[in-house]
Amino acid sequence: MTNLEEIAKKGKEASIKAMLLNSDLKNEVLFKIAQNLETSKDFILSANEKDLADAKKMLENNEISKSAYNRLKLDENKLKDMVQGVSDISKLEDLVNKTLWKKELAEGIELHKVACPIGLIGVIFEARPDVISQISALAIKSSNAVVLKGGSEAKNTNTAIFEVINNTLKSFPGFPEGFISLVYTREDVSEMLKLDKYFDLIIPRGSNSLVKFIKENTKIPVLGHSDGICHIYIDETADINKVLKICTDAKCQYPSACNSVETILINKKVVSDILPKLCEELKNNGVLIKGDKTCLETVLGIESATEADWKTEYGEKVVSIKCVEGLDEAIEHINLYGSHHTDAIITENKGNAEKFMLMVDSAGVYHNISTRFADGFRYGFGAEVGISTNKTHARGPVGIEGLMIYKYKLYGSGDIVSDFTTHKRSFTHKTIN
Amino acid sequence: MTNLEEIAKKGKEASIKAMLLNSDLKNEVLFKIAQNLETSKDFILSANEKDLADAKKMLENNEISKSAYNRLKLDENKLKDMVQGVSDISKLEDLVNKTLWKKELAEGIELHKVACPIGLIGVIFEARPDVISQISALAIKSSNAVVLKGGSEAKNTNTAIFEVINNTLKSFPGFPEGFISLVYTREDVSEMLKLDKYFDLIIPRGSNSLVKFIKENTKIPVLGHSDGICHIYIDETADINKVLKICTDAKCQYPSACNSVETILINKKVVSDILPKLCEELKNNGVLIKGDKTCLETVLGIESATEADWKTEYGEKVVSIKCVEGLDEAIEHINLYGSHHTDAIITENKGNAEKFMLMVDSAGVYHNISTRFADGFRYGFGAEVGISTNKTHARGPVGIEGLMIYKYKLYGSGDIVSDFTTHKRSFTHKTIN
Repeated sequence: MTNLEEIAKKGKEASIKAMLLNSDLKNEVLFKIAQNLETSKDFILSANEKDLADAKKMLENNEISKSAYNRLKLDENKLKDMVQGVSDISKLEDLVNKTLWKKELAEGIELHKVACPIGLIGVIFEARPDVISQISALAIKSSNAVVLKGGSEAKNTNTAIFEVINNTLKSFPGFPEGFISLVYTREDVSEMLKLDKYFDLIIPRGSNSLVKFIKENTKIPVLGHSDGICHIYIDETADINKVLKICTDAKCQYPSACNSVETILINKKVVSDILPKLCEELKNNGVLIKGDKTCLETVLGIESATEADWKTEYGEKVVSIKCVEGLDEAIEHINLYGSHHTDAIITENKGNAEKFMLMVDSAGVYHNISTRFADGFRYGFGAEVGISTNKTHARGPVGIEGLMIYKYKLYGSGDIVSDFTTHKRSFTHKTIN
Repeated sequence: MTNLEEIAKKGKEASIKAMLLNSDLKNEVLFKIAQNLETSKDFILSANEKDLADAKKMLENNEISKSAYNRLKLDENKLKDMVQGVSDISKLEDLVNKTLWKKELAEGIELHKVACPIGLIGVIFEARPDVISQISALAIKSSNAVVLKGGSEAKNTNTAIFEVINNTLKSFPGFPEGFISLVYTREDVSEMLKLDKYFDLIIPRGSNSLVKFIKENTKIPVLGHSDGICHIYIDETADINKVLKICTDAKCQYPSACNSVETILINKKVVSDILPKLCEELKNNGVLIKGDKTCLETVLGIESATEADWKTEYGEKVVSIKCVEGLDEAIEHINLYGSHHTDAIITENKGNAEKFMLMVDSAGVYHNISTRFADGFRYGFGAEVGISTNKTHARGPVGIEGLMIYKYKLYGSGDIVSDFTTHKRSFTHKTIN
């Protein structure tokens, strides 16, 4: 048995034992973790200093990006957010063992559909060390055991935060051992992806290439998204002010976010009215514009877009613009080239908005609002597990509910199926309130 | 592009167009299919005759089992059930575009969580030709397009039923072309499993080996179960009458069903009281019993069980019995050797029942009732997609809800995220009733 296999086996066992933890104890544990993270501030920040020193060298040698360096860096404010995050999660509803509905199947037979944790979850993340405390808190609250694999560039910080959390867990004698583990190496990741015997779900949080690699190399269900190719379609009756505001926000407010817009589709009937003003506004905000033939004919200073542009997540201040015949072509384009993440229509025509929102096959379909709203905190979920472009289980920004599944509890008093097949008894199927 | 790829592409497109179908039209289509199946009775039965003639030869050469032959055989009664099944599905609630909840994110910004179909579903099934009408009806009701692959031994019957359904669909001009397709070959299956670009879900309905093969050879989510290793644990305070009734029903009522019991665990404190009577009852019902050392010492005429027995789904009148120290060992055994399908405890101790139901990690956890109740119709779901032992999306008997996912619709009027990050506006996160 490899080291990771042992960790996973223990984690799975801990996930079963965790079913016995009551809400009060879990909230007390979370409260104590928040407190201990706060008092261990200097310990964590000095561990972060070590990682930052190494990262600085890598930055100078162009081995990591400036933004990766920034994500790695912790300060008092980020630590405060971490503490607040753990404390916020303690306030979420405890869904474990919550009865979703009850039904009488026949006289004396009661079926309860009950929420329960998924089991053992593997979380693979890159630079951001604050993921550890967030995911650990979610795991505790939802009674899911977790194996965390952090980025090697944050090894000292990750270890320090994990130590604070794990020592807190150990101080509660009722808390199952091995509930949260931290592993370090690439080998651990390839091992994890093979262990469908123990892991019930993998959540990758990081770059597109990380998520793609994981999705392609495991049979374990993966919750996440790789591409974020979001669209805005400017319809015939779009309000020009909304167009300028929304497109600028969706592209410029945080260009590297997965919910930023990459392609703007514009109804050809409003190209001459809207496109020049839109391009001016985007250029004034430092955006490089790539356009199709009609765009190039209408506005000067636009680069020519190719087929590849419709499939590209720029992740920076670049946008592609395409003219379309109308709503149907826009829907078709988005379903064909999009990543089923978040797509918006700008229109004053409610019927068109509803058709767009019905037929665009994406986790988020928006009317007259920026795609940047696709986020668990903005949706009011309190905590975000990730954003999913899956078509099963959980879709879009995923809150703690995404870490839950259900089981059926059936209560009888010696009931047997043969009484029903021989028509001695019959089903009633009544809802119980 | 292969033939199947074209079919899948068309199916995917049809799944988008199907979003526009309203409930009335879908119910009218289902009503007409039921009617046409009824009037095409002779056409379908004579196609079935051809398959049966071929199957008879295979049966004589021991190439298929008697039960496979029986599953293939249609008669007037089975056809009546098929027609009734389609008509029943028309009466289910239409979940497409149903609002699950609404929330105000901030003044003027409304988030709606809305149910929607999953998309394109591949269904791979063996002998039973009645699966075609059932799955087609579920697909129509839930607006999911479907590619069906039936067993080659039922080719004539499948084609006849499919023709009736498809001709009905064609008689409705608003119904998207290519919404339901039937394919025939093994090559189509291997092709299907590769087409994660088009297929959103695969549902295998058939033998363990079919389901296992599919789960191991695709990246597309699979809804189903391979093994059905169900347990009954006889606790210290079990009522002997319940034990005899439940164990006999769970093993003998339909031994080849996935929800039949395979292993009975018995608390060592009640071995001498209960085991002899239980073995007598089971033997009187033609059951072969395999037991551990304690069983062999207590009752004569029991075969010795080995480690392999705890992992075996007999699928016939064979059961293994093991003595355990108590509740904890029973839970441990079930979580280790079971298939997370359905497991029961027989006890008069409510606390033990609740602990068992909390800690046994199975889709169905039962108290004083036969495992044979694990079934979509018995649960009152109206139609069954299958039984799932997955830990995500859908678990246990799956009704039409298992064919649904959700999307988020966000309504604004020119709202942008930067107004919130710059604190000009703030989130309200209020539930809307």
